[in-house]
Amino acid sequence: MEIGFIGLGAMGRPMAARLLSAGHRLRVWNRSPGPARELAGQGAEAVGGAAEAFRGDVAVTMLADDAAYRSVGLAGPLLDQAPRGMVHLNMATVSIELTRELAAAHAERGLVYVAAPVFGRGDVAAAGKLTIVASGPEAALDRAAPLFDAMGQRTWRLGPDPSQAAAVKIAGNFMIASVIETIGEATTLAARHGVPPEMLLEVLTSSLFNAPVYKNYGALIAGRKYQPPGFRLALGLKDVRLALAAGEGARVPLPFASVLRDAFLEAVAHGDADLDWAALAEVARRRAGSEVGAGAAQPA
Amino acid sequence: MEIGFIGLGAMGRPMAARLLSAGHRLRVWNRSPGPARELAGQGAEAVGGAAEAFRGDVAVTMLADDAAYRSVGLAGPLLDQAPRGMVHLNMATVSIELTRELAAAHAERGLVYVAAPVFGRGDVAAAGKLTIVASGPEAALDRAAPLFDAMGQRTWRLGPDPSQAAAVKIAGNFMIASVIETIGEATTLAARHGVPPEMLLEVLTSSLFNAPVYKNYGALIAGRKYQPPGFRLALGLKDVRLALAAGEGARVPLPFASVLRDAFLEAVAHGDADLDWAALAEVARRRAGSEVGAGAAQPA
Amino acid sequence: MEIGFIGLGAMGRPMAARLLSAGHRLRVWNRSPGPARELAGQGAEAVGGAAEAFRGDVAVTMLADDAAYRSVGLAGPLLDQAPRGMVHLNMATVSIELTRELAAAHAERGLVYVAAPVFGRGDVAAAGKLTIVASGPEAALDRAAPLFDAMGQRTWRLGPDPSQAAAVKIAGNFMIASVIETIGEATTLAARHGVPPEMLLEVLTSSLFNAPVYKNYGALIAGRKYQPPGFRLALGLKDVRLALAAGEGARVPLPFASVLRDAFLEAVAHGDADLDWAALAEVARRRAGSEVGAGAAQPA
Amino acid sequence: MEIGFIGLGAMGRPMAARLLSAGHRLRVWNRSPGPARELAGQGAEAVGGAAEAFRGDVAVTMLADDAAYRSVGLAGPLLDQAPRGMVHLNMATVSIELTRELAAAHAERGLVYVAAPVFGRGDVAAAGKLTIVASGPEAALDRAAPLFDAMGQRTWRLGPDPSQAAAVKIAGNFMIASVIETIGEATTLAARHGVPPEMLLEVLTSSLFNAPVYKNYGALIAGRKYQPPGFRLALGLKDVRLALAAGEGARVPLPFASVLRDAFLEAVAHGDADLDWAALAEVARRRAGSEVGAGAAQPA
Repeated sequence: MEIGFIGLGAMGRPMAARLLSAGHRLRVWNRSPGPARELAGQGAEAVGGAAEAFRGDVAVTMLADDAAYRSVGLAGPLLDQAPRGMVHLNMATVSIELTRELAAAHAERGLVYVAAPVFGRGDVAAAGKLTIVASGPEAALDRAAPLFDAMGQRTWRLGPDPSQAAAVKIAGNFMIASVIETIGEATTLAARHGVPPEMLLEVLTSSLFNAPVYKNYGALIAGRKYQPPGFRLALGLKDVRLALAAGEGARVPLPFASVLRDAFLEAVAHGDADLDWAALAEVARRRAGSEVGAGAAQPA
Repeated sequence: MEIGFIGLGAMGRPMAARLLSAGHRLRVWNRSPGPARELAGQGAEAVGGAAEAFRGDVAVTMLADDAAYRSVGLAGPLLDQAPRGMVHLNMATVSIELTRELAAAHAERGLVYVAAPVFGRGDVAAAGKLTIVASGPEAALDRAAPLFDAMGQRTWRLGPDPSQAAAVKIAGNFMIASVIETIGEATTLAARHGVPPEMLLEVLTSSLFNAPVYKNYGALIAGRKYQPPGFRLALGLKDVRLALAAGEGARVPLPFASVLRDAFLEAVAHGDADLDWAALAEVARRRAGSEVGAGAAQPA
Repeated sequence: MEIGFIGLGAMGRPMAARLLSAGHRLRVWNRSPGPARELAGQGAEAVGGAAEAFRGDVAVTMLADDAAYRSVGLAGPLLDQAPRGMVHLNMATVSIELTRELAAAHAERGLVYVAAPVFGRGDVAAAGKLTIVASGPEAALDRAAPLFDAMGQRTWRLGPDPSQAAAVKIAGNFMIASVIETIGEATTLAARHGVPPEMLLEVLTSSLFNAPVYKNYGALIAGRKYQPPGFRLALGLKDVRLALAAGEGARVPLPFASVLRDAFLEAVAHGDADLDWAALAEVARRRAGSEVGAGAAQPA
Repeated sequence: MEIGFIGLGAMGRPMAARLLSAGHRLRVWNRSPGPARELAGQGAEAVGGAAEAFRGDVAVTMLADDAAYRSVGLAGPLLDQAPRGMVHLNMATVSIELTRELAAAHAERGLVYVAAPVFGRGDVAAAGKLTIVASGPEAALDRAAPLFDAMGQRTWRLGPDPSQAAAVKIAGNFMIASVIETIGEATTLAARHGVPPEMLLEVLTSSLFNAPVYKNYGALIAGRKYQPPGFRLALGLKDVRLALAAGEGARVPLPFASVLRDAFLEAVAHGDADLDWAALAEVARRRAGSEVGAGAAQPA
């Protein structure tokens, strides 16, 4: 298939590489040119502007946040010059509000908008094992299916409204953040009563909490291993903000998300924005007056 | 072994039955006599008072809360008449404060105190598949090992201090309650954006959240199936209170537990004390103004 | 002085009338034409567009929120055609972010931006007794002084940076909202222990809490008198959002503001957006399961 | 009148002195003997035990907390030997639960229990200017009236049930704590936007917030003057706990009180238990990453 690909960051790059490996033709563009050159070495065509990449049968975008979508022109100018009938797969995590706005703007111009955000970090993307949640018009999902297969191990089709996939992604990230906060509080509490974090986590993840989210984040928190970041804490704050905004739009109070917002903000205020978001657990420790000392938030 | 057993409620009764099946001799007592009579039919000796049951090689207790321990006399009088050297296995969920007090009171009188609370509901107890977290003197844990084997599928030995097991149990229940609240908020949010609760849960529990705690509580919440209760919501409030108290004793702020306290209290204020604690999720729905209507919190 | 005035709502209209009474010449504009016609009857010149009103020695604006400022063109086009050197007094409550953006945009075009938000409701504005908090270039504050005197009983000059006045206004509204929530919780608690809300408030406002904010909101809450609204609850939610955004911009966690956000959202979800924001207190009552019944949030 | 007085701490001592000055005969007792000797020098009779002081027409008690009441025997033994018909004025801040228990225990023994907690610090007590909130049987309040007049500038009679006065005191202290937290958050927010705390407070306490509670605590917080403590932060935590317990007893969620609990706990965890409770504001600053440095919480 002819594919345009915009946004070649830690996630976008390996996803584009998977599409190339699957035999698709890619026109790629990224704000900074390095990643595009690298993909050109793998067979992609590096183009000079976003407009040239927003072409083909399907355009895939993977930008950082709502602001990046607006500044690249995806809420306006870029759409005007795209070929009618093209499918735009937005695989990034953006707000419900932007999702609605983009869906309407695409429809007005005869383009098809599909929300298809992913769960999984860079290494998972490189292995083609992402979990993809997709919603949009049925026919567009069919057309995108080979791309999903190249990038993910499983794709969930949630329905015709792009807001659905956006909501699942936002709710999912909120749930992960809640797990991190819960582990932070629980391990701090247990440690003060003579139970090391790894002991608490071993017991609990052997039965009721036997899931990757507890094992993975539990290991990072118990070992205080927050570098290199799999997902930056600053992005975690952004995602909690998306959950709060989605709640405001739908009039859903989210007290856990509110606690998370303040805790993430506290972490950022203490200089931890670029650590893995598992470092949120350090907030609970600091509040309890634990001696974290210099370098506490460093790799073990 | 000669075993005394005090407290034959929804958990204590099947646990005692397991011990009988394993060939131990039991003296049993319960405040209301029905359960003791029933166990007598299975070979136990039903005795007339707590003092007569607090005897033998090992005494097992499974009472509702701190207050029950105090009112039965386990913080004082009952200890004075117990045989020196006897091991007391407290398998209930009680406060860190009571745990410390009992450990000291037992030591003063030449008795051995072991905290051995359990994870699992009544049906799990009946199948002998509880998860037991135990801490206390090494020799006492050795002596209790055959009893643990009869009641549980796995026993964790956490160390010599009874507070350790109490803390793991309290932290574990806090973590379960956090999961329930998280699911309540996340499903309410997603539902408002066109994603039914069961769809959100199916997606998430297929990968990152692939653990019994999400599957079990997710199903109850999606189906609004809160009766009969596996664990009463009023007991959930009690356990959150234990977490908050353990935090206060150790100077550990627990903002998630604080949110949970208020949510449980709101649920109780709305008449849901006797539903399963998964009904906490209804608080999130009600706050969002969802039409819950009459009978909303009933089985689907 | 020659004054342009944009935004003739519940606050803007009486403020403009005060300026007319003080002998100033006003060009007025409002999105809906009614209020401008009314002021024309008092001597103002009603003009046909915002651009014609954004003229003169000083332009005063009093719009609803950030979005209104953007849609009217005050973040761009309107500025290009305004006379160089003109002072723009923004007397509305807007975000710190917009304040910074407007200050920069004005400076680029040789215009002078002053933030001068007010404390006080419509009746206070009509009496010329507003409290004005102003910040911006010294000379501009001097030029605006006669206008402030016509509209307010006291003007605070906070410094040269427009963000200062915006921050004081946002912090002040956050503090009022905190008082409302506090009264809601405290009166619900006391009522359950036999102390009617008016009794609690009478005792406390006679000494330590002897301030208008407790007396005024206390009376509304005790009497459940939320209509007509002095300040709509939906605007209260907006202002809490401004506080949270100001906190995020400056990395300041605000746990009380987070609680307020969820409570305001719950109030809106239950249909109270158009009541006075004192109706936030009904959230505390509802959570406690108080029988509020049909029409509870009506005037006594 | 013949008066017994138990509890001669920072508040009890000046209160007892006021009663002596008013011409009453006092039998005084305190756990540590110093304060009793001092009062003996002013004409009181220092007795050797609590039982000897719990005598006379009226007994006044002013102990630290629930635990002190229990350990002195006021929930049991002391009552058995007191003269029938004696009025017991409990002027301390204790829980609703203890209030109910004591009221019942006194009634059973023909004693009369009055709750009469006070607002005001040590210097206010010395000046006889306390605000007293009293509830209990009408006749007992009449009998105590001359004592109230000697100790306070104003006494509120709230009704026949001792819980009423206890609830007003608990609600009042919760409201003060909410003010401290609000000021802490608001001043931290404003400071980050160029508004010094004293400027924010001067503006707001000149109008809407013109009350002693904002002026007094605002000055302490702006000046970071937390020593010597007028009311220790550890006692503030205790009082928030009383509010939460009163809420639990009556099924009233109190989200602000929950935030306060965690903040007080964090302050204690950072070593501030013995500072004035205005030091709660330092928690907001620390969370925002403000450089508080060594000695930050010292007198200015």
